[in-house]
Amino acid sequence: MVKITVIGGSGYTGMELLRILGGHPYAEVKHIISKNNAGKYVCEVYPNLFKYNDAKFKDLDVEAVAADSDVVFSALPHSASAEICGQLAKKGVKVIDLSADFRYGDVEVYQKQYNVTHPYPELCKTAVYGLTEIYRDKIKNAALVGNPGCYTTCSILPLYPLFKEGLVSADGVIIDAKSGVSGAGRKADVGFSFAEVNENFKAYSLTTHRHTSEIECQLSAAAGKEVALSFNPHLLPIQRGILSTIYCDLNGASGDGIYQCLDKYYGKEYFVKINKEGALPEIKHIKNTNFISIGFVTDKRLNKLIIVSALDNLVKGASGQAVQNMNVMFGLNEQCGLENLSPYI
Amino acid sequence: MVKITVIGGSGYTGMELLRILGGHPYAEVKHIISKNNAGKYVCEVYPNLFKYNDAKFKDLDVEAVAADSDVVFSALPHSASAEICGQLAKKGVKVIDLSADFRYGDVEVYQKQYNVTHPYPELCKTAVYGLTEIYRDKIKNAALVGNPGCYTTCSILPLYPLFKEGLVSADGVIIDAKSGVSGAGRKADVGFSFAEVNENFKAYSLTTHRHTSEIECQLSAAAGKEVALSFNPHLLPIQRGILSTIYCDLNGASGDGIYQCLDKYYGKEYFVKINKEGALPEIKHIKNTNFISIGFVTDKRLNKLIIVSALDNLVKGASGQAVQNMNVMFGLNEQCGLENLSPYI
Amino acid sequence: MVKITVIGGSGYTGMELLRILGGHPYAEVKHIISKNNAGKYVCEVYPNLFKYNDAKFKDLDVEAVAADSDVVFSALPHSASAEICGQLAKKGVKVIDLSADFRYGDVEVYQKQYNVTHPYPELCKTAVYGLTEIYRDKIKNAALVGNPGCYTTCSILPLYPLFKEGLVSADGVIIDAKSGVSGAGRKADVGFSFAEVNENFKAYSLTTHRHTSEIECQLSAAAGKEVALSFNPHLLPIQRGILSTIYCDLNGASGDGIYQCLDKYYGKEYFVKINKEGALPEIKHIKNTNFISIGFVTDKRLNKLIIVSALDNLVKGASGQAVQNMNVMFGLNEQCGLENLSPYI
Amino acid sequence: MVKITVIGGSGYTGMELLRILGGHPYAEVKHIISKNNAGKYVCEVYPNLFKYNDAKFKDLDVEAVAADSDVVFSALPHSASAEICGQLAKKGVKVIDLSADFRYGDVEVYQKQYNVTHPYPELCKTAVYGLTEIYRDKIKNAALVGNPGCYTTCSILPLYPLFKEGLVSADGVIIDAKSGVSGAGRKADVGFSFAEVNENFKAYSLTTHRHTSEIECQLSAAAGKEVALSFNPHLLPIQRGILSTIYCDLNGASGDGIYQCLDKYYGKEYFVKINKEGALPEIKHIKNTNFISIGFVTDKRLNKLIIVSALDNLVKGASGQAVQNMNVMFGLNEQCGLENLSPYI
Repeated sequence: MVKITVIGGSGYTGMELLRILGGHPYAEVKHIISKNNAGKYVCEVYPNLFKYNDAKFKDLDVEAVAADSDVVFSALPHSASAEICGQLAKKGVKVIDLSADFRYGDVEVYQKQYNVTHPYPELCKTAVYGLTEIYRDKIKNAALVGNPGCYTTCSILPLYPLFKEGLVSADGVIIDAKSGVSGAGRKADVGFSFAEVNENFKAYSLTTHRHTSEIECQLSAAAGKEVALSFNPHLLPIQRGILSTIYCDLNGASGDGIYQCLDKYYGKEYFVKINKEGALPEIKHIKNTNFISIGFVTDKRLNKLIIVSALDNLVKGASGQAVQNMNVMFGLNEQCGLENLSPYI
Repeated sequence: MVKITVIGGSGYTGMELLRILGGHPYAEVKHIISKNNAGKYVCEVYPNLFKYNDAKFKDLDVEAVAADSDVVFSALPHSASAEICGQLAKKGVKVIDLSADFRYGDVEVYQKQYNVTHPYPELCKTAVYGLTEIYRDKIKNAALVGNPGCYTTCSILPLYPLFKEGLVSADGVIIDAKSGVSGAGRKADVGFSFAEVNENFKAYSLTTHRHTSEIECQLSAAAGKEVALSFNPHLLPIQRGILSTIYCDLNGASGDGIYQCLDKYYGKEYFVKINKEGALPEIKHIKNTNFISIGFVTDKRLNKLIIVSALDNLVKGASGQAVQNMNVMFGLNEQCGLENLSPYI
Repeated sequence: MVKITVIGGSGYTGMELLRILGGHPYAEVKHIISKNNAGKYVCEVYPNLFKYNDAKFKDLDVEAVAADSDVVFSALPHSASAEICGQLAKKGVKVIDLSADFRYGDVEVYQKQYNVTHPYPELCKTAVYGLTEIYRDKIKNAALVGNPGCYTTCSILPLYPLFKEGLVSADGVIIDAKSGVSGAGRKADVGFSFAEVNENFKAYSLTTHRHTSEIECQLSAAAGKEVALSFNPHLLPIQRGILSTIYCDLNGASGDGIYQCLDKYYGKEYFVKINKEGALPEIKHIKNTNFISIGFVTDKRLNKLIIVSALDNLVKGASGQAVQNMNVMFGLNEQCGLENLSPYI
Repeated sequence: MVKITVIGGSGYTGMELLRILGGHPYAEVKHIISKNNAGKYVCEVYPNLFKYNDAKFKDLDVEAVAADSDVVFSALPHSASAEICGQLAKKGVKVIDLSADFRYGDVEVYQKQYNVTHPYPELCKTAVYGLTEIYRDKIKNAALVGNPGCYTTCSILPLYPLFKEGLVSADGVIIDAKSGVSGAGRKADVGFSFAEVNENFKAYSLTTHRHTSEIECQLSAAAGKEVALSFNPHLLPIQRGILSTIYCDLNGASGDGIYQCLDKYYGKEYFVKINKEGALPEIKHIKNTNFISIGFVTDKRLNKLIIVSALDNLVKGASGQAVQNMNVMFGLNEQCGLENLSPYI
């Protein structure tokens, strides 16, 4: 059994971690940390978590957590997360951080983007970016994993092979992304109240969303040169799921070429579904699962490639990929606890 | 033109008043009062209110409002509303209060139910309960109208004639009510966030909801004896609308008798639609309108009458009925500004 | 491994069976039968079923199914189901029928309610009603199980103990039930199109729904006398889930007495959650799971008990309970394949 | 009074015409034509249309319609519409056709796009494209108006001035459009059933949607040269509304320049709301209204202009703009019957 602590257990990604780990055959949850809810039963806050009947949220005791845990998941907000993860990592506990704090190899980029000073800049260099399908070998031996963001996983996975192989122009990429509401977390905010969000649709943070830099860092690595792209998120009136429509200029590749490239990188990946040209993924194909589904069409008239990629922001876009990384780090079957199929409806 | 002030203009019932008055041919909105938003443009808070392009929210100046207004609508919370409405009423301005503060003839019942001391108990006696179809004659000359609640309008209108005529047993009535989310107002509250409310359904305040006493007061008056009933609300994941399923024991009446009774009271009422037995109203028939639609079935096997009534909680259940009352008070055509049909979809 | 055939695999309950069995450690799906989709890949119709990558829908071959299967699930419509299930049962295959065809011990009641002639009336007598928590011992050795309806499971489970122990009056019970849309199945019908159902709410089949007789049969057995009650369904604009508000007259019992009675029957049941008085279940507590959650309040003023029960219509109300029954019939751990917790959001 | 016939009155655009005309002070609806529903009361099909209490759907009688009507609205499907509109136009009745049949000056483009032979090609030349703000002067005297599509209105209105004035590159424009479900009309189709659409989001008809050619025709006229662009629609799980995110390459213009250009064309237009840079429209600002709201941001880093435009597909995108055109054709105030503000929630 892997002994686990979840910190920040009362937000949606924390709850999702508990839900997934509740069905994981080798997971033993030792501590569930939540400052705001310390002392409360987990089931009081999340009555769906029937299996955690006797568990209570606790305040953080770094010593106790370090002593009892093989791995710690942090679902804290950025900045707060770095502080705690750093302490735990220094004590030799393996850490998977779901915040942005350890996603950037270059701490300067992080500090500029998030406008904070990083408390453990040295750890940024050794932390591994937790995009499992791309960095699996490094994740195996990682002490500290910076788990990718939801928008970024949905953007990078389809584009990485195409940039690496030069099948599309590295310039001029436009990502028009649409996300369900849970991506914003659990909060008391009029702007996310039902009456304001339901039957509505809107764009937000056009050209300025923080995930832009995370995507550009990874794709620059793939392309071997500086990449700048236009990333533009929208808010869907649904619970879960991201669907991104990605516009690229083709570098002479055909639809077959695109498929072969994606198949070469992901054909054997359990959690990546590559669809034939014209078969497009929808949110309901992957809702509540750790799958990402990728489809595309080529437009000869305009020499464009349009990719459509879809994943569940709380699973492959957060807690599911975190558990996938844990499985890799502890030598478990990578699918453990993550095999559920989408309910479709 | 009727000169109007709206107080509490930044909540949903205030916004709905502005929306309706924006299309009312005899309405001239003089002041829009909101403590929290004083100084802001109305369109900044509600970009849908295109017609109020140059209007700003203001802080309350009782003297100015009294001087400039023929009528004041208060969309303040209960208790706060009584204080302001009382001051304005004392200055001779006509007042329509959308809170619960002037809905009870017996101030003791109000004070017990809302657990507050009423600042103007003497005004409760002269205030008129603004259920237009029942109290139209009194509303014509009212100085102060206590506008009914949304659940209460949906419950009392169908039951009043049946209680008055003794067609159903005054005992044992069960009202199973379901309301859209806007009934809870505009607020930052995790419990009303999209992710928590969407794809969910729940009961709340079973047996203890405050509207119970308001309904019982009015039906006791109709029945000529003390009425006690079971009122139980539920939260629907939709924007607007209440649908109540009401269970009564028949006093020997047939379906025809029920129809005739309802038709006798409401056959000439523009805003009350009485359906033939078995033709049941749905939320989409009345959404965004001032109509209430009433249907029913009789169950001979069990000797029961089941009524289904539906209205829009923000229109006939609040701001629309308030404007209907204003029309009555100022001798205007009662339908003025309220003739829109439901968009259905 | 249990060798399984699913007949009617292209409707929602069929799809849900495949989804659940896809994560069941002892399930081996041999045939997936769908007349309409014979020849198509399963993933073409349900792209969410990634694990059934190579599986195709087939036309029914009774001999082949009988030869290859330890158990057959039928998700066919009533009447059509009896015909096929009867043939297979006669060949000695264990059958779990999700239609209404084998739910009634008294075939006359069935024939009157469904207005058909039953092709295998003799099998109705030996078939076992598949309400696992009540009839587990009989299900263990059953050759043919009539799996209960969604509304009925949600109604009978909370009421059975109370009727059995006489804690509520057997007369006058009112069930006000609200169901998500998937209960109606997968069909091309304007009345179930998105634009018609979304942002709407309506009652339907008041006093006449077929599940009334199924509920009355079971509760009459519990009460030891003829029970007649008022069952009234409504359509919620959500994917899944039923929440029933049930009104009973108390027979002198207190809230504690009610809790103890429910706890006595279900305290050790994994899939039944009994909540303390006042803690009410919501759809999101049980969505996508095989749990039923039961709560209640007592109303001393009116001497009433109000029960709120909630389950997922496609899981505990159909395919999940069917798999639970399979587990019982084959001596497996009853929770096998059904341990998922609700996603909550 | 303008005497009006609505043909195809039982679809959503037909219903919406009736709803709008029901509140139009100068509209007198003479005939409501529906082949499928001939003989039924309008209120039986659309119980929300309370004002049409005594009206029935009729079969089409071209002579009677021509004799009784000043103007005919056709909400028939393309191809069927041309046939009927042609006959009526030949008889001298003014016609507003909501189908695509008279939207193309060049009948060849239409015939290729819709893969049909146009029965009245000569009328295509004299028909006026009913984009009111652009072609108002021609519409005044038009005998036959081809009312624009929903996606096209939302795309052309913001782009027309920018193409005309050359502020953006005429090449490389990408329109990522998202539409509510009512755009697909009222139909029995599993793909548009609630359970399939709700909590889902998908792209469809990427690069191949018919509205592409309609947009390109109009923008080519604006630019004075052949325009080719990428138009890509998506399906939103909401009732109404289109929001388009439009990506253009800037031709050196600043944000101020963009605003001034849009303001020059639309500053005095009642139904076009131009927002300051960074203030973005949302569906709820314009839902149920005839307004289009246009916002934008400029991205200096990538030299791009991102426009966000939003309208209600059934109002400004169909029936509302049709009534706006009628007002223009009959010398009425253009806002007549169309002044409602959006309900926001």
